[in-house]
Amino acid sequence: MTNQINGKLSDPRIRKLFESKNFVFLSSLMKDGSPQVTPTWVDIENGNILINTAIGRIKQKNISRDPRVALSTVDQNNQYEMVTVRGKVIEQITGDVAEKHIDKLSKKYIGKDKFPRGSKGEVRVILKIKPEKIFHMN
Amino acid sequence: MTNQINGKLSDPRIRKLFESKNFVFLSSLMKDGSPQVTPTWVDIENGNILINTAIGRIKQKNISRDPRVALSTVDQNNQYEMVTVRGKVIEQITGDVAEKHIDKLSKKYIGKDKFPRGSKGEVRVILKIKPEKIFHMN
Repeated sequence: MTNQINGKLSDPRIRKLFESKNFVFLSSLMKDGSPQVTPTWVDIENGNILINTAIGRIKQKNISRDPRVALSTVDQNNQYEMVTVRGKVIEQITGDVAEKHIDKLSKKYIGKDKFPRGSKGEVRVILKIKPEKIFHMN
Repeated sequence: MTNQINGKLSDPRIRKLFESKNFVFLSSLMKDGSPQVTPTWVDIENGNILINTAIGRIKQKNISRDPRVALSTVDQNNQYEMVTVRGKVIEQITGDVAEKHIDKLSKKYIGKDKFPRGSKGEVRVILKIKPEKIFHMN
């Protein structure tokens, strides 16, 4: 944590942190304004950060109320390579795109073509996060 | 993320997550109420979670304004073993105790007896977090 710089998602070292199997820790706001944080899979696309969750989960309810989020990840193999982001959820995407996207993440993280869905009727949703501030630390 | 239970800090599996070299991701609130999240070292003691930072860092300023925090960690070697906590900073401790505590964390995380201090005049502070809700997921 000795060196901290403003970063961009296009920076190869930052990209790598998101493209590896590292979890990100997503923070959102509860109804009373207190923070919540949860580990989750992640993907990046066109300068945005994509999280895939299910409708009705705490984080989805939180960001529907207040879209402000923060997230951070470290390299599993070198925890001193780290990135932290503040931004907003600018879009929620459901439907076929979201269902296919969770399978893509499943492939990335656990090597399974099909995500082992938790419950019937689970509706997947992509949270598209536009980063506003990105700090890269190593 | 299939199985989520209410947990206690005394649970051996939860203790292990905090006692291993895993980083925790601490979320606090910016002045405008938006969340911030940052990776950090951690320690537990007498049912509380201890973070060690320096006076004037973002997280220290944030929790001085609003003590509500959340934090989460996963096992570096099995990211599907995870814990997430919501709670409050109930005390800030500076002085000799905090200076010794950062050396303890230094020993734990990087095997160095003395923490390589970033700058002269850096004042270390322990943020003592009382957990209110603990969820263990695996």
